[in-house]
Parts: sequence; C-alpha cells; structure tokens
Amino acid sequence: MPTANESSALVSTPVTEKKLARILLDGHGGDGAPDVVLDGLQRVMASSSKKVKFGVCGLVEVLEPALKARGLEKLVEIVPATEVIEMCDAPAVAVRRKKQSSIHVAARAVRDGDWDAMVSAGNTGALMAISKLILKTLPGIDRPAIASMIPAVDGGTFFLDIGANVDCSSEHLVQFAVMGSCYLQAAEGVESPRVGLLNIGSEETKGTDVIKVTAARLRESNLNFIGNVEGTDLFSDKVDVVVCDGFVGNVSLKTMEGLANLMLGTIKQELTSTLVAKTGALLARKALKRVKNALHPSEHNGAPLLGLNGIVVKSHGGADAHAYACAIDVAQREVEADLITRTIEAMNTMAEASV
Amino acid sequence: MPTANESSALVSTPVTEKKLARILLDGHGGDGAPDVVLDGLQRVMASSSKKVKFGVCGLVEVLEPALKARGLEKLVEIVPATEVIEMCDAPAVAVRRKKQSSIHVAARAVRDGDWDAMVSAGNTGALMAISKLILKTLPGIDRPAIASMIPAVDGGTFFLDIGANVDCSSEHLVQFAVMGSCYLQAAEGVESPRVGLLNIGSEETKGTDVIKVTAARLRESNLNFIGNVEGTDLFSDKVDVVVCDGFVGNVSLKTMEGLANLMLGTIKQELTSTLVAKTGALLARKALKRVKNALHPSEHNGAPLLGLNGIVVKSHGGADAHAYACAIDVAQREVEADLITRTIEAMNTMAEASV
Repeated sequence: MPTANESSALVSTPVTEKKLARILLDGHGGDGAPDVVLDGLQRVMASSSKKVKFGVCGLVEVLEPALKARGLEKLVEIVPATEVIEMCDAPAVAVRRKKQSSIHVAARAVRDGDWDAMVSAGNTGALMAISKLILKTLPGIDRPAIASMIPAVDGGTFFLDIGANVDCSSEHLVQFAVMGSCYLQAAEGVESPRVGLLNIGSEETKGTDVIKVTAARLRESNLNFIGNVEGTDLFSDKVDVVVCDGFVGNVSLKTMEGLANLMLGTIKQELTSTLVAKTGALLARKALKRVKNALHPSEHNGAPLLGLNGIVVKSHGGADAHAYACAIDVAQREVEADLITRTIEAMNTMAEASV
Repeated sequence: MPTANESSALVSTPVTEKKLARILLDGHGGDGAPDVVLDGLQRVMASSSKKVKFGVCGLVEVLEPALKARGLEKLVEIVPATEVIEMCDAPAVAVRRKKQSSIHVAARAVRDGDWDAMVSAGNTGALMAISKLILKTLPGIDRPAIASMIPAVDGGTFFLDIGANVDCSSEHLVQFAVMGSCYLQAAEGVESPRVGLLNIGSEETKGTDVIKVTAARLRESNLNFIGNVEGTDLFSDKVDVVVCDGFVGNVSLKTMEGLANLMLGTIKQELTSTLVAKTGALLARKALKRVKNALHPSEHNGAPLLGLNGIVVKSHGGADAHAYACAIDVAQREVEADLITRTIEAMNTMAEASV
C-alpha cells in the first residue's frame, strides 16, 4: 500500500462529493458491437444499485432493435449518429472525413456537457485524435495519454503512456505523472500514489537524457516520486504509478499480453497432456480459474484517456461483455470522483510550486 | 520454422567446419561464484562427449581449492587474475581502475587468441565496457549489443539489444539485425532467419522517425526482413530475430521477468490454497514442472555480446549451476560455428550490396 506523504500537495486536494454519472457508450467499434456493448451495460445495470444515466451513441436502425431485444429501450437513451469508424480506418482520415461518426457525436456530447463521460471499444488512434480535437487538453497539459491498470502483487499498477505518444519530452512525462497520480487518488482512493519513472536501472546515472531530466524534475515536484523503476517493478508492491513514453509503454504492455497468452496456453497444453495431469487439473480447476482471473487483461479492461477536458475510456476491441462492464465501471469512477477538476487543481498546484 | 529465402546473401555463407572450442570462464561475479561456475562447468563436462578445453580465470587462492574439491584440478586450467570486479562497481571506474580483474584478463586472453570465448556472470556494464575496450568491435559495426533467446511458441525468439545501448540510430539497429541474423544461422542453424523490427504497430506509418528509417533500410537489405512486429509477436512463431534499442529491449525483457514471476507465484499460491487444489497440483506436478521449465529464464540463460571481435557470453548473475551450464553451451556453439568469421562476411556482403 502507498505510504502517506504529508508534504504532497495532492493529498490536500479535497475529495468532492460523488456526482450522478451520465455515461454515453459508443454503440460501434470493437469486435462484437453493439451486442458486447449492450450486454456489458446490462451487467452493470443488473449488478449496481447506483443511479447512473446511460446512453448509447450510433446508428438508430442498429441500436433500437438491439436495445429492444434486451428490454432496455426505455432505460437507455439513444444518441443518434449516422457514420461508423471502422477499425481499419486511418485515424487522420477518420477524424476529418467522418464527422458524424458515433465517436465524433459522443465526444461533442461530452464537450457540451450533455454527458459526463464516454466509453468506446473503437479504433484507438481515431478515438484519441477525435477526443483531442473536440475535447481539447486540460490547462497546462500538452498531450493526452492512454493509461492501463496492470496486474501486480498488491492488486495493480497504473501504467502510462501505453501508446498515444511515441516521442515524449521530459515536460510531457512530468505531466503524465501528475495525470496518473490524480487518477489513482480520485478513482482508486490511493492517498499519495507512489510514482516511478520506467528506466533500465534504478541508479540516477541510467537511461536516456530525457529520462535523466524527467527524474530530476520529478524529484523537485510535489508528487510522491520514488525514483527510477524497472520492468520487473511493474508487478511489485513498491510503486503505484509508472510513467514512460508511449513507445516503451506499448511494447511493455504487448510484451505482457504475449507472455500471458504463451504461459496460459502452455499450462493448458501440459495439463491436458496425460490422464493424471488432466485429473489433477480437474481438481485444481477452481484455483487455476482464479489464477487466470487475477492475471487476465479483461479484468483490467478500461484504459482511461487522461489529460483531456472530458472523460473518455477506451475498452479493448476484443473485450467480452464482462470486460466491457469493467470499462464502464472505470468511467463511472472517474465521473464520481470528479477527475477533471482534481487534475486541473493538481496542475495549478504544480505550476505554483515551480514559480 | 523460418521460410527459405534464396535471395538472402546470408544463406550463401558457407558453414565452416566445427572447431575445437577453448572456453574461459570468469571465476568471479554473479551471486554464487565460484561454486555456481564450477558446478555448471562440471555439468557440461559430465554430459557432453565433445572435446572442449576449459579454463577458469581469477584469484588462484580461491579457484585452486574449489577445483580440487571437485576433482577438476587437472582438467581445468587456471588463468590467474589478481582483482575482482564487484556487482556494485561502476562500470566506467572498473574498466580503468581494475585492469588485473578476471574480466580484463579473460578478455585479453581471448583477444590474444589463447582462448576462443569467455563466459561471465559478472557486472554486465563492466563486462560490456571491458570487452569493447579490449576486443574492439568487428569491421562495420559501431556498437556491440547484448542479445537473449526468449521463450516462444516455436521454441524461442532471438531478441536484441536488451540493454547495452539506450540511444540507437537506424544504422545501429540495422547492424543489430545483421548480428542477430548471423547468430541464429551460426549457433542455431536457422537457414534464413526472419527479422522483425519492434514497433507499436505493424503498419509502416507507425513509430518514431528512427524506426521508420530503419524499416526502410531493412526492406532494402539482403536480410529476410518481415517488417514491423509488436510486443505480442515476440512469443509467436512468425519471427526469429527481433531488433530494438537497448532501452526498449531492457524494459521488455524485465517486463517478461516480472510477469513470469507474478504468474508462477500466483499459481503456486492458488494451488496450495485448498486441500482439493493441493491434491490436484500434486497429480499435475509433472505437467506444471514442464510449464516452469519451458518458460523459466534459466533455460534460456547465456546472453551473447554480439558485434565484438571475440566471443563473450553473459550469464545471469543469479544463475544456478544448470543455468550457468546453458551459458557455457551458448559460448561453445558460437565457437564451433565460427560466428565471428560469419558476421564479418555478412557485414562485407551488406556493404557490397549497398555500394
């Protein structure tokens, strides 16, 4: 668990009262839309007693029958859009050419204050580009970042940027640290998140020039900066937020995904290789199921796009209904904790401290 | 398995006859030296019928009794050194101040042709710096790289650079591709290794400027370049050599190490959580042991330092005797396949092709 750090200005940010969330889902994008989206929504509505207003954005002729089939037509509002961005669309082209897409319409609805947050399983590049164009970044933040909660010994580590920015200056990385720290405080209730900078060694002499300058700036900041961390530390209980550029973060995240699949595949293969092993696996199936659940990416679905003047959550394109429900939950927590206001306040404090 | 690529100049490199290997081990460095080193050596000597001359380099007063205790004093030559580089020594300082260290002495012995290869579990930074200073790089190669074989669906993927060079130009990355390709051909007998460039997407538009330029140069080279690959592909059967800079490679490798430990730890914990699970785990223990063996880094121990004018293999500092034996095996295969000559030839072919 995080250590208290009374000197951190972030601790003093008052926790605002929880708001009623109005969450708009992108009815398109991802492998199984709109079914996965609505099945995920149905799970959230069935399991939670919270008062949340839900909407789904997209082609009325597709969404209306899908909602009716689930008996949700009176509970969930349709926000009409007339275009759909495909996974194969180039983000830059989709931004300019499909201005009536469900992502554009949803982002404008969030910008205009009609909805508090949007969730999309669509094309990541397009989602990021459109969100940035329509919602803009928060004051003091140059670039939004995509973050992900990854499994760790103590439950999870918040990791960013995982792919939005391939080249980052130390200024960008410091902003990511503030954004990540605010998210953990607001959405997860971590009092003074321990921030680490991803590097190839813990010593101050290690890494690129950008990393060395970033570390120096973070040491002087009012964040709870614990120094450089390595790839192994991502899964440890010694750090809460790990910051890196989007190239390194994306490679690291996809390394995890690839290795997890290889390991789970090997386990399955070996456990069905002999009758004795099969019997053992049958007896241990609940335990093995827990292993898979604890480590599987779908349990950590819902990647927040941070630094924007509006709440946007990306669901994995291959998410199932359960995983999609996790992404909705992330959006809901961000709204309830008023993440945007808290991030603005933290950026202000940071700016005042560096004057 | 790799696809044949008849246009590749690498394929035409003749396989030289296997040489008698003379391998010198660093008797110091790593967690359990010299015991782990000599126990590893003993395993190699017991299991192989190959004629190999082995030596161990270091403090005579330490190595002599350790060899005698194993009955190896007449089979293994001691190459005396009077200093030892500690894991905590700064590489730059160790290079200059400890010129009689076991790493210095062993590197000079390889340079002078008294030994064909050296293996060390010592301080990686010092090993790289001293090897580069004493052995120099091969013609046409600016910087050596450290490589590692990582587990994959088809047995393994050869991955470099894993930490020697934090900043790399496209020229460096192209050289790494040649070095990695030669290694797989020579040491593993892969006819035309499929080379991939680690990126955050397979499309040509993805990645940093350095990555885009590197991809263009690799497409024009005579290597069997398959294009950009992602972190997930490292564990697949679609690529044999994956190239990246040392920052990204080190983070990716340590991400694997951290996740593997988390997963194996979670499995162990869950499988001992209830009596039924325990019984199941007992029945499935052989299968689970095979999973661990297939994926555990120690099975892939022995990271070649490539691009040097001499064969140097780094063993993991925490290697046990079995893992250390794997590192000796890597050195032996490099010598037998005459990796140095083959790399020089490949670099020449590359230079001729680009004229």
